[in-house]
Amino acid sequence: MNPSQNPPQETLNVLLERYRAFVKKELFPLDLSVVIGPFRSYLPQLQALRKEAKNLGLFAPHLPKEEGGLGLNLVQFAQVSEILGQSPIGHYVFNCNAPDIGNMELLHLFGTEAQKNTWLKPLQEGKIRSCFAMTEPEHAGSNPINMSTTATREGDYYRINGHKWFTTAADGASFTIVMAVTNPDADSPYQRASMVIVPLDNPGYRFIRNIPIMGEAGEDYMSHAEIKFEDCIVPAANLIGSEGAGFALAQERLGPGRIHHCMRWIGICERVFDLMCRRAISRELDLGKPLAEKQTIQNWIAESRAEIKASRLMVLDTAEKMQELGAKAVREDISTIKFFVADVLMKVIDRAIQIHGALGITDDTLLSFWYRHERGARIYDGPDEVHKSALARSILKSYRNDG
Amino acid sequence: MNPSQNPPQETLNVLLERYRAFVKKELFPLDLSVVIGPFRSYLPQLQALRKEAKNLGLFAPHLPKEEGGLGLNLVQFAQVSEILGQSPIGHYVFNCNAPDIGNMELLHLFGTEAQKNTWLKPLQEGKIRSCFAMTEPEHAGSNPINMSTTATREGDYYRINGHKWFTTAADGASFTIVMAVTNPDADSPYQRASMVIVPLDNPGYRFIRNIPIMGEAGEDYMSHAEIKFEDCIVPAANLIGSEGAGFALAQERLGPGRIHHCMRWIGICERVFDLMCRRAISRELDLGKPLAEKQTIQNWIAESRAEIKASRLMVLDTAEKMQELGAKAVREDISTIKFFVADVLMKVIDRAIQIHGALGITDDTLLSFWYRHERGARIYDGPDEVHKSALARSILKSYRNDG
Amino acid sequence: MNPSQNPPQETLNVLLERYRAFVKKELFPLDLSVVIGPFRSYLPQLQALRKEAKNLGLFAPHLPKEEGGLGLNLVQFAQVSEILGQSPIGHYVFNCNAPDIGNMELLHLFGTEAQKNTWLKPLQEGKIRSCFAMTEPEHAGSNPINMSTTATREGDYYRINGHKWFTTAADGASFTIVMAVTNPDADSPYQRASMVIVPLDNPGYRFIRNIPIMGEAGEDYMSHAEIKFEDCIVPAANLIGSEGAGFALAQERLGPGRIHHCMRWIGICERVFDLMCRRAISRELDLGKPLAEKQTIQNWIAESRAEIKASRLMVLDTAEKMQELGAKAVREDISTIKFFVADVLMKVIDRAIQIHGALGITDDTLLSFWYRHERGARIYDGPDEVHKSALARSILKSYRNDG
Amino acid sequence: MNPSQNPPQETLNVLLERYRAFVKKELFPLDLSVVIGPFRSYLPQLQALRKEAKNLGLFAPHLPKEEGGLGLNLVQFAQVSEILGQSPIGHYVFNCNAPDIGNMELLHLFGTEAQKNTWLKPLQEGKIRSCFAMTEPEHAGSNPINMSTTATREGDYYRINGHKWFTTAADGASFTIVMAVTNPDADSPYQRASMVIVPLDNPGYRFIRNIPIMGEAGEDYMSHAEIKFEDCIVPAANLIGSEGAGFALAQERLGPGRIHHCMRWIGICERVFDLMCRRAISRELDLGKPLAEKQTIQNWIAESRAEIKASRLMVLDTAEKMQELGAKAVREDISTIKFFVADVLMKVIDRAIQIHGALGITDDTLLSFWYRHERGARIYDGPDEVHKSALARSILKSYRNDG
Repeated sequence: MNPSQNPPQETLNVLLERYRAFVKKELFPLDLSVVIGPFRSYLPQLQALRKEAKNLGLFAPHLPKEEGGLGLNLVQFAQVSEILGQSPIGHYVFNCNAPDIGNMELLHLFGTEAQKNTWLKPLQEGKIRSCFAMTEPEHAGSNPINMSTTATREGDYYRINGHKWFTTAADGASFTIVMAVTNPDADSPYQRASMVIVPLDNPGYRFIRNIPIMGEAGEDYMSHAEIKFEDCIVPAANLIGSEGAGFALAQERLGPGRIHHCMRWIGICERVFDLMCRRAISRELDLGKPLAEKQTIQNWIAESRAEIKASRLMVLDTAEKMQELGAKAVREDISTIKFFVADVLMKVIDRAIQIHGALGITDDTLLSFWYRHERGARIYDGPDEVHKSALARSILKSYRNDG
Repeated sequence: MNPSQNPPQETLNVLLERYRAFVKKELFPLDLSVVIGPFRSYLPQLQALRKEAKNLGLFAPHLPKEEGGLGLNLVQFAQVSEILGQSPIGHYVFNCNAPDIGNMELLHLFGTEAQKNTWLKPLQEGKIRSCFAMTEPEHAGSNPINMSTTATREGDYYRINGHKWFTTAADGASFTIVMAVTNPDADSPYQRASMVIVPLDNPGYRFIRNIPIMGEAGEDYMSHAEIKFEDCIVPAANLIGSEGAGFALAQERLGPGRIHHCMRWIGICERVFDLMCRRAISRELDLGKPLAEKQTIQNWIAESRAEIKASRLMVLDTAEKMQELGAKAVREDISTIKFFVADVLMKVIDRAIQIHGALGITDDTLLSFWYRHERGARIYDGPDEVHKSALARSILKSYRNDG
Repeated sequence: MNPSQNPPQETLNVLLERYRAFVKKELFPLDLSVVIGPFRSYLPQLQALRKEAKNLGLFAPHLPKEEGGLGLNLVQFAQVSEILGQSPIGHYVFNCNAPDIGNMELLHLFGTEAQKNTWLKPLQEGKIRSCFAMTEPEHAGSNPINMSTTATREGDYYRINGHKWFTTAADGASFTIVMAVTNPDADSPYQRASMVIVPLDNPGYRFIRNIPIMGEAGEDYMSHAEIKFEDCIVPAANLIGSEGAGFALAQERLGPGRIHHCMRWIGICERVFDLMCRRAISRELDLGKPLAEKQTIQNWIAESRAEIKASRLMVLDTAEKMQELGAKAVREDISTIKFFVADVLMKVIDRAIQIHGALGITDDTLLSFWYRHERGARIYDGPDEVHKSALARSILKSYRNDG
Repeated sequence: MNPSQNPPQETLNVLLERYRAFVKKELFPLDLSVVIGPFRSYLPQLQALRKEAKNLGLFAPHLPKEEGGLGLNLVQFAQVSEILGQSPIGHYVFNCNAPDIGNMELLHLFGTEAQKNTWLKPLQEGKIRSCFAMTEPEHAGSNPINMSTTATREGDYYRINGHKWFTTAADGASFTIVMAVTNPDADSPYQRASMVIVPLDNPGYRFIRNIPIMGEAGEDYMSHAEIKFEDCIVPAANLIGSEGAGFALAQERLGPGRIHHCMRWIGICERVFDLMCRRAISRELDLGKPLAEKQTIQNWIAESRAEIKASRLMVLDTAEKMQELGAKAVREDISTIKFFVADVLMKVIDRAIQIHGALGITDDTLLSFWYRHERGARIYDGPDEVHKSALARSILKSYRNDG
């Protein structure tokens, strides 16, 4: 994105305030109902909100101005992302939700003009949705070189066969980007896979189910599908970038993606923290004796505040460095925030539930939704364990080279 | 229960083996489907299993022999309970599930002959189900002296008014025992409430909803209801024990109740531990490199094993003392196991999910069910914080008396 | 301090590099011997190092240029402080060690000209040392309004009586600043105490002992004394600021003081982290199988790196705000870093010891020194519990005011 | 030991009460002074106490009656050991301290008559002390097959060369049992080492130093030495058991040894817990507001009580099984208690220090001694990490065999 167009700090501050106001006024009163669902019944309301966001000039903040966005850089968007993250429908309403945002970034950077016109444009305008098919049930997701899905070149076409799951938001999407092995004989296992666009009305695409996750299968945007590609034929022109570039592209996609996730998690933490404090002052154990007077509750509030603050500073610091030096230079930092913030997120949610007592485990607050659906945060995009090992090995390498 | 009829150790060992075999053969293949539900669609199968359990002489193990049970003492039943706890339908199939078991114990000890004939007998035979209405949404459950529900004596009747929630398994139950204030002017706040039986076909009883909890409202036995009593009139003969004895009876009920819960949790831990180990040896990160070789996974397995063992020994030790000395003598021990084992339970489940990766957050294993529905373990029957404070204050009291 | 004189970023970077080089070259080879002691036997070497530091223009970096320092602002000094903190003798050699630095700041801001000439000047030049007498054995240090030491005005003198301990570095110091009650009848308990300078050759001052702490009493700069004031008469002109201003001054002193401590702790963390990594790659369990390959070790390295990074960002963020808005505006932030960084410090040290195995508990590395002498970090200047409660109450207050 | 001579439960209870009384009356008033030392200056007092213990028939409780002991079995001795562990001089005064107790067990089971007469008898009578030389500075202690010390057979003698450290209590001991490689070419690395007795007046034995550990080198019984064997010639008759049996014997020695350690740690926990509670009720933050009213303090007391209880039940359970089935059958249990109890120990000590505030880090209570000298508990006899891996691998093995 063109850095010259990034708004100056003052403009950004005004923008952030407007996002805050919108989220509080329009999304907070609605979001609990939407997550209870069914999601599709809320689509008209959500479309209306998207329209309003567009009218207010707040839509798709991550896009360059000429593509209908606000031209925010990574650090600026991160701050918006925290605000939107406070509501489970925040990113969706502003059309900067995963996996669409990652797909937009990918097509923006590496798509052909034709791909941009066909897929990127309607995506940016919020007219269609998309998904990203990488994880396979038969292989540990954390090791992307183990992949069975293949895309075999046959003349001007690819024939795709494979089995994917956790394809977020496939239900209702118009196309998916699929990761598939095109070059099984490449020397490096990191140069065997490619990314190919598959329109979901393709007869070779089969939607199996929305996977029941933590008590509900969800639907539409709020779902994670299991899908199959069975002799699914797509034009070779649907290849993104070059053959064998799949992992390189995935890395490009995951770098900012993890910043986005982390800032969204921090947004969740802030909303949860707010619920925690409100409950603490309003719930009385004895007449006139609110929970807030209990030292254990105070400990949790203090620890949560400290950990959220640490998280935010680390993610913004990483975003700043990534913006300046590129994704590769901040691989250690990305691993660091991935496991650190995911851990903070789950701890903050857990404390809030405990403070809410029986109410905390009901679906009468958002806590239950996040407790269930963010448990995955410690798993997706690389489980804690993988990121910790990667970070440590990278650090230790410098010691070894040191002699 | 009559201690003379407790089976000797050898007989018990045979019994335990039979329970283990039944649970493994009959319940493990079914239970995941049942918790996915809808529960009522599985009632025929579950009734058939109950019948089989009866035929095998394994039904209602906690009951005295003359009432159709096995005459197990607390320690012996605790060992059965761990085995049944390995399946979410274990206690139900053997008719020793909460809240029925607590109601049976209560009526057995304190019910009149008429109450026993009308309510206890069909309960013991598994012909009806019951529930227990104590917690109120307006009051913190951990402080039972704050209660708004009233049962006002009017001649030979009580007029009951109040609002309860987390009335487990009310949906489909035949009667509830309700805790209500009968003596608002009693000197001690602990002598104001009483327990009264209310048949659920009473016109003054209103079922509001099965509370959506962690993503699902459930139904029948697997549900927690919000209910109301609106000028609900019941005969004075439905009083259990004497007026004002509600808290004393609740304590009697909760003592063994917490042993039951803890042993059930340990059962869950064992099943989860088993899933964890199976996953560790079968999930390969690289060809021939199972998760089990990762030291982090080994740490979790070792820590889980240690904590489960510690839990079991403490619960059995407490059961033994309670059996010998009564519930009052083991109040410190009860608080200890309540918070200790609930904590272990959640840690073990959490580790198992992490080891399962993406699969762990789906509903394709039991982990998701327990992660969601046992989060309440740290809250119900007194949250961790209340038990810790109670234990510490009791310990410190002896120091103060000491001078 | 005069902000106009703060060196620009480029100059600072050069300075930091010079500090790093000095510490590594001159202090690392010496510091383990010094902490083993006896400290006094190393004074000649330490004085030589101080002289060298002066010659290199690196001495007393916190002081304004006109007073012989480098004119660093709080954020800049914080970065120097982290570097010096990597060695237990770092701050001492550069004359910016507690408690002298706090006393310098106090006298600089609130001392009379006479006090500055008599006490501040030789302190800045490193010719004398000082101490600060606040904590009393009879009262919990975290509640400073409970204090028994009195300074009674008698004409032009104060008569001081009282018992203090943890008076750091009293052994060998030339004067102490003592906190004593001068106005016992003041309305607010926070306006009863004052700060008075007491030269330690005063006959009413009694040095009782260097308190044996964690296995050693230490001596000189590396010690914490128990002392008494017995009809200790000092001129009224030794009062700092006004009568009753003791607590206000102490707050002024403690604000930057906690920044200094936190940055020093981060310095320790970095040195310890370095030891941890070196051990991990050099210690072999089997031939060619270094500890570094163990995932548990990797976890500790990764978690330590993440926590140290979080600590640094939070402390620098707090320093920046304090610099801009004053100490009062960052009271929540100060509490946050105090408990957060102290906790990180102890965790990092503990992991390093475990990685070192038996060697880690010997005095053959610095780990034992820090494990023992930094355990106090979670206690002095307010224990964790006090800061957590303070932070939470401050946060919750805003919620209450909110309605 | 002859089980027929184990005292019945009633006798044991009386015995335990007598130990408790002795420890409280004779050791508690003295032990803090002894650990501050110098140890040798207390030898006369300690000898007098040993004599008194003998007179009371409480000496060497682990020994068979015919050898001057009480004929306690493992479970019974474990209970005594907990009581003695409450004082750092408890086991010493009753002559059942490590490493002597392990050496006595070894010589009792595997010594020749001559060895028993020369070494075991005076040891049992408390006339001499001994030590055990296994760990080497050049090798990770947790992998005992890496060992450089050799004992080369030359006719009727062994020539021993090697470097050992952490040879507990070598200072002042009369002999050591040394682990050395005698059969470097044995097929199994576990059959290369042997145990040989070396009298410490042997000219080939060199005492290098008492290793400074956590701030003090200690002396006599309270020390850990670094030693060397330099062409140290001893008669072949000093071999214990057969050549190559070193590891097998070490396992025999370590099994009960870990039970002893764990029970001693539980004793420490109980003393520390007592200090914690006393401090909580006596330390006032405000007038009439003791620490004990703070919920954080209550949490720590409750958690400590729970964890200590869990520890005791697990260790006694393991002792019981070991007694019945032998050390090999309880290898998993031994690993479990080793890491579980060591962790509890350090947590309990840490909480107690925090509750004591500044006093907690001084040497004015026993907390500092245990905080420092028991940090090794998580390292010696196998660090946590080794035991966790061993336990997990053993568990997972059964799954693999299962298919």
